[in-house]
Amino acid sequence: MSSPEPIRVLIWGENRHEQIEEHVAAIYPDGMHTTIQQGIEENLGSTVTTETVTLDDPEHGLTEERLARTDVLVWWGHAAHGEVSDEVVERVHQHVLSGMGLVVLHSGHWSKIFTRLMGTTCTLRWRSEQDRELVWTVNPTHPIAQGVPNPIIIAQQEMYGETFDIPAPDELIFISSFTGGEVFRSGCTFRRGHGKIFYFSPGDQDFPVYHHRDVRRVIANGVAWVRSDLPERAIPTLLRYETEDFYHGHGYGGPIKDAE
Amino acid sequence: MSSPEPIRVLIWGENRHEQIEEHVAAIYPDGMHTTIQQGIEENLGSTVTTETVTLDDPEHGLTEERLARTDVLVWWGHAAHGEVSDEVVERVHQHVLSGMGLVVLHSGHWSKIFTRLMGTTCTLRWRSEQDRELVWTVNPTHPIAQGVPNPIIIAQQEMYGETFDIPAPDELIFISSFTGGEVFRSGCTFRRGHGKIFYFSPGDQDFPVYHHRDVRRVIANGVAWVRSDLPERAIPTLLRYETEDFYHGHGYGGPIKDAE
Amino acid sequence: MSSPEPIRVLIWGENRHEQIEEHVAAIYPDGMHTTIQQGIEENLGSTVTTETVTLDDPEHGLTEERLARTDVLVWWGHAAHGEVSDEVVERVHQHVLSGMGLVVLHSGHWSKIFTRLMGTTCTLRWRSEQDRELVWTVNPTHPIAQGVPNPIIIAQQEMYGETFDIPAPDELIFISSFTGGEVFRSGCTFRRGHGKIFYFSPGDQDFPVYHHRDVRRVIANGVAWVRSDLPERAIPTLLRYETEDFYHGHGYGGPIKDAE
Amino acid sequence: MSSPEPIRVLIWGENRHEQIEEHVAAIYPDGMHTTIQQGIEENLGSTVTTETVTLDDPEHGLTEERLARTDVLVWWGHAAHGEVSDEVVERVHQHVLSGMGLVVLHSGHWSKIFTRLMGTTCTLRWRSEQDRELVWTVNPTHPIAQGVPNPIIIAQQEMYGETFDIPAPDELIFISSFTGGEVFRSGCTFRRGHGKIFYFSPGDQDFPVYHHRDVRRVIANGVAWVRSDLPERAIPTLLRYETEDFYHGHGYGGPIKDAE
Repeated sequence: MSSPEPIRVLIWGENRHEQIEEHVAAIYPDGMHTTIQQGIEENLGSTVTTETVTLDDPEHGLTEERLARTDVLVWWGHAAHGEVSDEVVERVHQHVLSGMGLVVLHSGHWSKIFTRLMGTTCTLRWRSEQDRELVWTVNPTHPIAQGVPNPIIIAQQEMYGETFDIPAPDELIFISSFTGGEVFRSGCTFRRGHGKIFYFSPGDQDFPVYHHRDVRRVIANGVAWVRSDLPERAIPTLLRYETEDFYHGHGYGGPIKDAE
Repeated sequence: MSSPEPIRVLIWGENRHEQIEEHVAAIYPDGMHTTIQQGIEENLGSTVTTETVTLDDPEHGLTEERLARTDVLVWWGHAAHGEVSDEVVERVHQHVLSGMGLVVLHSGHWSKIFTRLMGTTCTLRWRSEQDRELVWTVNPTHPIAQGVPNPIIIAQQEMYGETFDIPAPDELIFISSFTGGEVFRSGCTFRRGHGKIFYFSPGDQDFPVYHHRDVRRVIANGVAWVRSDLPERAIPTLLRYETEDFYHGHGYGGPIKDAE
Repeated sequence: MSSPEPIRVLIWGENRHEQIEEHVAAIYPDGMHTTIQQGIEENLGSTVTTETVTLDDPEHGLTEERLARTDVLVWWGHAAHGEVSDEVVERVHQHVLSGMGLVVLHSGHWSKIFTRLMGTTCTLRWRSEQDRELVWTVNPTHPIAQGVPNPIIIAQQEMYGETFDIPAPDELIFISSFTGGEVFRSGCTFRRGHGKIFYFSPGDQDFPVYHHRDVRRVIANGVAWVRSDLPERAIPTLLRYETEDFYHGHGYGGPIKDAE
Repeated sequence: MSSPEPIRVLIWGENRHEQIEEHVAAIYPDGMHTTIQQGIEENLGSTVTTETVTLDDPEHGLTEERLARTDVLVWWGHAAHGEVSDEVVERVHQHVLSGMGLVVLHSGHWSKIFTRLMGTTCTLRWRSEQDRELVWTVNPTHPIAQGVPNPIIIAQQEMYGETFDIPAPDELIFISSFTGGEVFRSGCTFRRGHGKIFYFSPGDQDFPVYHHRDVRRVIANGVAWVRSDLPERAIPTLLRYETEDFYHGHGYGGPIKDAE
């Protein structure tokens, strides 16, 4: 049932904290995107091919041509959400709705692409004071929950807490708690158009979360899960169908003349 | 438990077909929005106060001041989705996320406000050839399904068919079939931010659907259901909380300095 | 839209801990069911009428006649789930599927009636050591979440933790955390047949949880929400329908002769 | 990510219509279970091993030993649901909750095992008069929907119509319409305990539905999907955990002494 073709994964990194803040560079000397990439390769081996691009690349590295040959896009951004061009966001949005898988990590909850896909503010409560995060599985049969302990223990983490303003996820897989007592729906799936999306909140620039074995496994599981099973990339389209012809739709000719 | 204050309902009508097409004007001589308004009043009586506005009103009738005193907005648009200004759509979006209820009717599926809230294309298959529509209840305990037969029979209707490109609804209440054999998730609820949304597909400019007793009852039920129970209108906001202070959040000071 | 008839609420209490354990009797001198009853009356006033029955009543107080005049049944049991007769459980099951609302509290998660309605083991992890429980709202627009702070703080509580083996709830309203770091889906709704169900986990015999103002409010909200909107109590029934006769079903005559 | 071990599939057939009714034997000369088996093998090839058992086998062919070496059970029953022993149903239930996948076909909606897992009556409306069934995809990204046209056209079928008394499915994949205008949620997934369940309604003894290429593909997709990803079969269990020991639960010692 599974395709023998490797999953073509593109990791998008904002790559700003690493340049500006010494303590982040110390944790992620090659950039967070590279550490995330290594975690995916570590778990998925030859079933993936991976590349990284960053905000400062031309068109943020997200040209039409590149997206067209990407099966799964992994997104980490934080300090510079506002610098991502609307045109590129629109392009990524179209690709997700057409079948490109998307894994959104941590502070990517407030990225333009995630809020556009969700339709909500995607806000939350937060605090960065080295809380311990416990990631609990509430959907034990889901492929994304396989191969990790229950709970995953992350020694130091930023706190993300409810109420997280997202649509009720299609599947809720993980719920996290923090030392301070807050909780968070930390692993959620969403189907949008022909695309599948996995949001996973662990991971921060200030802590070595993307070096954590279990976090890496979950991200890899997410990459495998969001990969499309559809034979080709195509955006859902409004079409007119004659009675008894179920398979040949006609393009839209406007509301008045064609009387939709 | 229920508030004694009447629900302040605003019906937004595009009001173009009625001006341009004689057969539409014949069915809806005072405009579709007026017929929709009458159906709501017929069912909810003194528990509502209603007003109508249209596309051609200044700011489409949707000023900040007007939205602020609207509990539930009902939306019918079709031929002129593109003429609705992005600024007004943004304003409506903010009010829905802040707690204003929204009922989207029929061709409103492709409106800017609905697609922005859904994050998907909201496309479907269609045909306007006087199919009979049967509206079947699949969630019999939902308040929106009360007081109507199963199925509701609509003698003549435009066909709307699957695949309807929306997020899986929070609650699926009605599924319709059409003479040609197509099916459609015709009654769906969505919670977004602090707002509740009901989408109901029956209703078209070419047929007298908004004069249908059961369709009017469902729309009225939807109006009552999307009305917010929250004490005030407020948009979800990202806030920082000190450890052990669960109730007093601090505003966001930027990603680097405050180290979200 | 709302019925003027008061909601007829029946609180079912196991009433064993109160008889056997002094420290429980000290907290709940008139029985836990009475304290729960008072909390409902405190919040819903004249919109409810309430009664209590207990395990040791004839037929556990749950005769056909009594259930027939009950709109909402509230269930607290723990030590004696096994003593509840299968016949009575079957009767309650039929009434829930026919439209009687059900609120299941705390250790009722392992009652015969709840596991039968869920179809799963309804097991969980637990510890009784005076953890603090924080009850977080994740569905802020739900009627059951109204009128309580976010979070509700319960100073001392038994810990109930994930993985909670229930079907994914139709609506997830509350998630709790505990001092030890565990999390729990503590407020969940389920629609089954013509009945609505609300499970709420706070509440224990060892701690004065049912005296807590916010806990009482949530239980009252739950009572109001599970109350049926259907005009009469009736169990879903398999019926045969002739083509084009959508409203008059025929009873089932057996699989071979009638060729279902 | 996927296991190289073949999926061990067991097809359970009631095998009564085929013995009693000539027209059924004409369509399914080797029994319906054999035709279903062939469809699974046709699609999944060497990734499965298959066996069939029937109601009249000792213990209906569902011994503890046999279930223990079954990854996925496929169930077709109709005329003799009542003859399936409660003990065997209990055994199957335990295996599903422990991780055995389950595919329930057509009239299996009213089987003891399905109603026990659902907790509802699982009733519906029906008519057997050679309606045409159209099976529409509403969840195009789901693995179970791959490789079939939208819609699947089944020339002659029994009608199954709403309201289908099931819990809202975790995922709704297919909705069917019938010539008479009825609709049905015909493809649904449910997660229960450690088990995954797929219900698919097309298929009847009176029509050659299990010879239909697309129906066979969907059943095969369902078999692949319900197969567990968990490393071993185990039932969810109630366990006590000491503070800070998240991984070593203790067995339950009774409600009073251990003070759950």
